[in-house]
Amino acid sequence: MLHAVVMAGGSGTRFWPESRRNRPKQLLPITGGQAMLAETIARLDPLVPLERTWVVTNAQQVQGVRRVCPRLPVQNILVEPVGRNTAPCVGLAAAVIAEADCDAVIVVLPADHVISPVDEFQRALRAAVMAADQPGRFVTFGIPPTWPAIGYGYIRRAARTAVYEGLDCFHVAGFTEKPQAPRAQQFIDSGEYLWNSGIFVWRARTILDAIQQHMPELHLGLARIAEKIGESGFQAELDRVYPGLPAVPVDVGIMEKVEGALVLSAPFRWSDVGSWKSLYDEVKHDEHGNAAIFPKGGTLLAEDARGILAYSSEPQILAVIGVDDLVVVRTADAVLVARRDRAEDVKLIVDRLKAAGREDAT
Amino acid sequence: MLHAVVMAGGSGTRFWPESRRNRPKQLLPITGGQAMLAETIARLDPLVPLERTWVVTNAQQVQGVRRVCPRLPVQNILVEPVGRNTAPCVGLAAAVIAEADCDAVIVVLPADHVISPVDEFQRALRAAVMAADQPGRFVTFGIPPTWPAIGYGYIRRAARTAVYEGLDCFHVAGFTEKPQAPRAQQFIDSGEYLWNSGIFVWRARTILDAIQQHMPELHLGLARIAEKIGESGFQAELDRVYPGLPAVPVDVGIMEKVEGALVLSAPFRWSDVGSWKSLYDEVKHDEHGNAAIFPKGGTLLAEDARGILAYSSEPQILAVIGVDDLVVVRTADAVLVARRDRAEDVKLIVDRLKAAGREDAT
Repeated sequence: MLHAVVMAGGSGTRFWPESRRNRPKQLLPITGGQAMLAETIARLDPLVPLERTWVVTNAQQVQGVRRVCPRLPVQNILVEPVGRNTAPCVGLAAAVIAEADCDAVIVVLPADHVISPVDEFQRALRAAVMAADQPGRFVTFGIPPTWPAIGYGYIRRAARTAVYEGLDCFHVAGFTEKPQAPRAQQFIDSGEYLWNSGIFVWRARTILDAIQQHMPELHLGLARIAEKIGESGFQAELDRVYPGLPAVPVDVGIMEKVEGALVLSAPFRWSDVGSWKSLYDEVKHDEHGNAAIFPKGGTLLAEDARGILAYSSEPQILAVIGVDDLVVVRTADAVLVARRDRAEDVKLIVDRLKAAGREDAT
Repeated sequence: MLHAVVMAGGSGTRFWPESRRNRPKQLLPITGGQAMLAETIARLDPLVPLERTWVVTNAQQVQGVRRVCPRLPVQNILVEPVGRNTAPCVGLAAAVIAEADCDAVIVVLPADHVISPVDEFQRALRAAVMAADQPGRFVTFGIPPTWPAIGYGYIRRAARTAVYEGLDCFHVAGFTEKPQAPRAQQFIDSGEYLWNSGIFVWRARTILDAIQQHMPELHLGLARIAEKIGESGFQAELDRVYPGLPAVPVDVGIMEKVEGALVLSAPFRWSDVGSWKSLYDEVKHDEHGNAAIFPKGGTLLAEDARGILAYSSEPQILAVIGVDDLVVVRTADAVLVARRDRAEDVKLIVDRLKAAGREDAT
């Protein structure tokens, strides 16, 4: 059976003032609909029902996860005592799922990515499940790059192995974390690279075997935790063991070491929306290039203004006069006005707030 | 005795979203301190005590006047049933004051101007009282112009009559309402013109006599109202008579016709702050040319941003990144972001709100 593991432990303030340390992007309706986590889960329907959907998060966010996913079974929320990167996260989820379903196939997804259209995503997921449904197969979704992004990881593809659902599936030649600009340009020019979406599909058994082989320390830790699955001491054991697990990305700890890593060329539009600027690129614009995101309603009035991203968490009027290419964000306690191509500098604002002892606003 | 008449009946939305039809500039702390009306009254202390301070307003604003001036005697608030420009307003106040104090000298001031420093204003007021304290003298404050403003009225000065408190006092040669740009430039170049501040000083008896001579219709109406002063039927008579009075500015109806019009060259800084743009020009800037107005507290965080006017009616954080010369305003239900030199186009926003049936927001 296909299970989904949604990784929802990230934190960050790149969407300040809407995102805060304890109110990260995945719990916010940044794209204008539901919270991104809820949208990620909804995108799996009907391929993965809620009872086979698992969310890995942390103690700070567990209430937020319950709030935005009220129908998710509570026991399907796994609570990391501390973030240890993605390999322990993936391993923990696989151990828990394998205990319930020894033939499980798992799709692992970040909670806070924008993907559309849904039917193309589901086509790719069906294709990936076909590709992964043999021992020793590790399938990742690669996104054909459209520009030399320096903020994404890249996957170099090797020979094509097969076509599933009309989608090309390749051997993986290697992974590269965020490259510098000239290298990113080379990647694009070569035509051999895909963006690393951070979405993986594998059998639970396959990933657990690979952890045993390539990350024995993680394997031992997970084995201790697994002994308590379904018992009252589970969370206590998790809290004891987890902090000592190796904090390694699954790409590095597993994918780069295994023989059977595959990359499926994904047919959907994808973004990890790392900033207000990239959110602007992902949402719909009117004929003046203005995008208005009002999760609870509201109005953008643009007077001789183009290229505006307007966002308000409350139903408000945002008026912009005579200026182009801005991000304008309003939340309960702050307003951000930034040149759109400088929106990533909200980190400087957050730094200044911290330095001023205003952690309440970060 | 010196009395003050503060004209607080204006309405307008040039400071939208902070000012609204029923929440005009004079009732708002636009300059960062108290409401402008309260600041105007405070600026008279100790020359005019509150019991000799009179506010002329209208039914829509009377509650607001009481709110921002809680110590003003309620009977000193005169409520126009409908605005009839300044001549009836001035005449009504003079009639009421003369009834209480037949030797009264009156200073008439708009409620919503910015004036500083206070001591120079008070020096000018003392000088004007000296100049006005003879029958037939009508003293106005003229502001030495600093640029060819097209939004102000101009007074052409004639021969100097005297010096009071070190300030030159001239005969008035004529009044000109808002001129077009070439004419305004000629005015500046001639050196003979002063801006019309709309502040007048005269004996109550002098202005009432002038109304009798030059505006007999107004005189008759005021006489009918005056018969009821101090009686329970006063407001009812005012409501009956006032709407029929001639709606004429006191400049036109009286000042241009009398022999004894004088203009005192004012030593203070003055602005009628007709827009967010002109407010920016009147308030203090930091070393980056940024001005932050937070009547209830708040923080402007400007990151590589200059020439910003930030205003919030609530204690908030306003962050601006990478863009210069903006007005950023936040109120309970709206945000305005405008290029500073386009801030007067808030009227276009207000028009659009009206057209969309959103009178609630205008």
